[in-house]
Amino acid sequence: MTDQHRHDTRLDQFVDSYSQRTNGMRVSAVRALFAVANRPEIVSLAGGMPNIKDLPLPAIGDSFAEMVAQHGMQVMQYGSGQGEPVIRERIVEVMALEGISAHPDDIAITAGSQQGLDLVTRIFCDPGDVVLAESPSYVGALGTFLSYEVEVVHVVSDENGIDPQALRETIARLKADGKRVKFLYTIPNFSNPAGVTQPLERRVEVAATCADAGVIVVEDNPYGLLALDAEPVPAIRSFDENVIYLGSFSKTFAPGFRVGWVLAPHAVREKLVLAQESATLCPPVFSQFAIANYLTHHDWQHQITVFKDMYRERRDTLLDALASEMPSGTSWTHPAGGFFVWVTLPEGLDTQAMLPRAVDARVAYVPGGAFYADGQGARNVRLSYCFPPPDRIRVGVERFADVVRHELEVMNTFGVRTGHPLPGTRRPAGPGPELT
Amino acid sequence: MTDQHRHDTRLDQFVDSYSQRTNGMRVSAVRALFAVANRPEIVSLAGGMPNIKDLPLPAIGDSFAEMVAQHGMQVMQYGSGQGEPVIRERIVEVMALEGISAHPDDIAITAGSQQGLDLVTRIFCDPGDVVLAESPSYVGALGTFLSYEVEVVHVVSDENGIDPQALRETIARLKADGKRVKFLYTIPNFSNPAGVTQPLERRVEVAATCADAGVIVVEDNPYGLLALDAEPVPAIRSFDENVIYLGSFSKTFAPGFRVGWVLAPHAVREKLVLAQESATLCPPVFSQFAIANYLTHHDWQHQITVFKDMYRERRDTLLDALASEMPSGTSWTHPAGGFFVWVTLPEGLDTQAMLPRAVDARVAYVPGGAFYADGQGARNVRLSYCFPPPDRIRVGVERFADVVRHELEVMNTFGVRTGHPLPGTRRPAGPGPELT
Repeated sequence: MTDQHRHDTRLDQFVDSYSQRTNGMRVSAVRALFAVANRPEIVSLAGGMPNIKDLPLPAIGDSFAEMVAQHGMQVMQYGSGQGEPVIRERIVEVMALEGISAHPDDIAITAGSQQGLDLVTRIFCDPGDVVLAESPSYVGALGTFLSYEVEVVHVVSDENGIDPQALRETIARLKADGKRVKFLYTIPNFSNPAGVTQPLERRVEVAATCADAGVIVVEDNPYGLLALDAEPVPAIRSFDENVIYLGSFSKTFAPGFRVGWVLAPHAVREKLVLAQESATLCPPVFSQFAIANYLTHHDWQHQITVFKDMYRERRDTLLDALASEMPSGTSWTHPAGGFFVWVTLPEGLDTQAMLPRAVDARVAYVPGGAFYADGQGARNVRLSYCFPPPDRIRVGVERFADVVRHELEVMNTFGVRTGHPLPGTRRPAGPGPELT
Repeated sequence: MTDQHRHDTRLDQFVDSYSQRTNGMRVSAVRALFAVANRPEIVSLAGGMPNIKDLPLPAIGDSFAEMVAQHGMQVMQYGSGQGEPVIRERIVEVMALEGISAHPDDIAITAGSQQGLDLVTRIFCDPGDVVLAESPSYVGALGTFLSYEVEVVHVVSDENGIDPQALRETIARLKADGKRVKFLYTIPNFSNPAGVTQPLERRVEVAATCADAGVIVVEDNPYGLLALDAEPVPAIRSFDENVIYLGSFSKTFAPGFRVGWVLAPHAVREKLVLAQESATLCPPVFSQFAIANYLTHHDWQHQITVFKDMYRERRDTLLDALASEMPSGTSWTHPAGGFFVWVTLPEGLDTQAMLPRAVDARVAYVPGGAFYADGQGARNVRLSYCFPPPDRIRVGVERFADVVRHELEVMNTFGVRTGHPLPGTRRPAGPGPELT
């Protein structure tokens, strides 16, 4: 930045001072539209916010009050960079429900599992390194990888998650090109956004392929305890202790505390704690004690059952509505848990270009392109069933189907897509809370 | 990482996978010693933890309970990446006490002001860029700059903070060397660790020098409202709107919520929010509402007066004890606020080598080298008066003076320093909560 720049009248006088990584950050046009789309008359099938209306709020408030009165000097003070022992001990119990055996020492607490992703990327990735991801993958992870100037390569995936054969071929091709492949980022349970679950035999094959190739597996499992049909498939971490595992209380309790965790081999855990201390000194202390308090004083496992009953009804409503409303040529996934259904529209439709008209028709979704780093996903959308009540979900799908039908008619009549693509990048730099 | 490495028996099989920035992270020997030094018989003059014993804990707990019962679905949900409007509005009022005029839109909430530092460095600094800092400077900031592979250059400072003439010369020299100087990191009020305050005329000169040179000023002000003698000097941000200003509730309320903020020019604030979303989705939501609740339902300005009365007594005790106990040839600063006194021992002493013997004598301090990126500070220590009660502070200084006297005797008798320097880096990679 020159002296002259400092004093001129440009909109951003700091433009010459930003780091290389900042130049890749852009506000997405999708985000701007969502600000408009927050009006109550619009049915949002876009957001990934958990529905916490069934929590026993007055009882939780009372037990927090007692905690502050009795232990305020501890729960409101600085804490451990690794996270408080009391919550790490409880997390071991939570993970045991998914077949994971671990020790509290191997856990690093993070400000939500998003920060787990950030710190894992920070300690492993230099600019230009490659991270492998499902196809499609979580928008928030893609934003984090971008912010570290990492190259994301999507591995062909299907209704059973990552295809192990495609994984082998992708790694071999990248290595032949001289790329440094650092880790595979995967959500094997009820993935965001695809809503698919990877069977055990594939998990074993994926883990073995990565081990052979020296590629670390980063397993993100925010939805694992929200299996709506059968028992959950064991986590990859349950049979491979070299996995770096990300967990979260956002979907099993509440997201506003911003408490997630990373379970990692000892040496990696040490690096994560150093990185955490540099990033925030320590993860939110009050939040950790608040969640430990909730887990102690409330029947949290029963609460998860209540959540599952609610989400199951909504999932069924969404799938029923899609089956009865969507025009032919449309397909979608059938999630056995989690929050999301991935819809594939007929060839030729552009779901980002269509979004303003959907909002005009009072329904919102996330365009599929947000979940790819490479421009795929133009005819996909992610629909979420977690937040609106069932009757609103049905109305939302009716509106969505109307918009799609109208788009198809226009396309078939004129042979072109309607509307103008939104300016800006297809994929947001940060996911924003509405896209979680 | 090769296949062979992946399966071998080294302590850290991931060693070939870490990023460049991770290779600079080391666990400091000082940190390891502090783990031992946490025993109750040791007087710790090392930590920077605020003393929150005077907070009205039961009343605070009750108002939190009411907040959860009535607004739990909001305060426990995902929130804004920028931070909740309700707390940003209150922060404007807090900053007005230091002469700062601002709008809530220009504030980005962070997970403690440490994360503010992290995000500011993230958006501005590429590896090899230069950040200027006081001499000495905050250990936690140095850790953050290191983690972004930034070169820290200390500017000569005295009992009035940064020397403006030295600042001009340093910038000119660095520019002549072709360096990119991104920002000046400064704590003008009651600095950590030096405990000195910069007078207004110097602040004006420093700001003008930076503006002329196109160097951004990052003003960190965690202690500004803890002026123990006179009225505080106006913040640099109060007369220069291009300053990036970091604030914190850790010292005026409680640190365990991890809520700080960055006040920044509009374009910078936008980048910070994008970086925050990539780092954590959103800063801790419950924490933000909890602090807004505290500011609304409790007399927080009176509480700060209570804190100041407590810290004033402790500061006076420490200064009195130093005056009566320390051997000649020792000098120290006289802080008008904040938490810290910076002690300079006679030439030839090494405070890091001396630390194990101090802990053996049941007193702990932070060796001065922790506050320099360039190996200075060997004969300095930071003493803090914030946490131990006055009688313990006096005992701690007596023990400290005994250790110093013994070191001097040995040095004068044998002409060498005693003891063995600790292994590991002089400066911790992360500060750790005990060093804040």
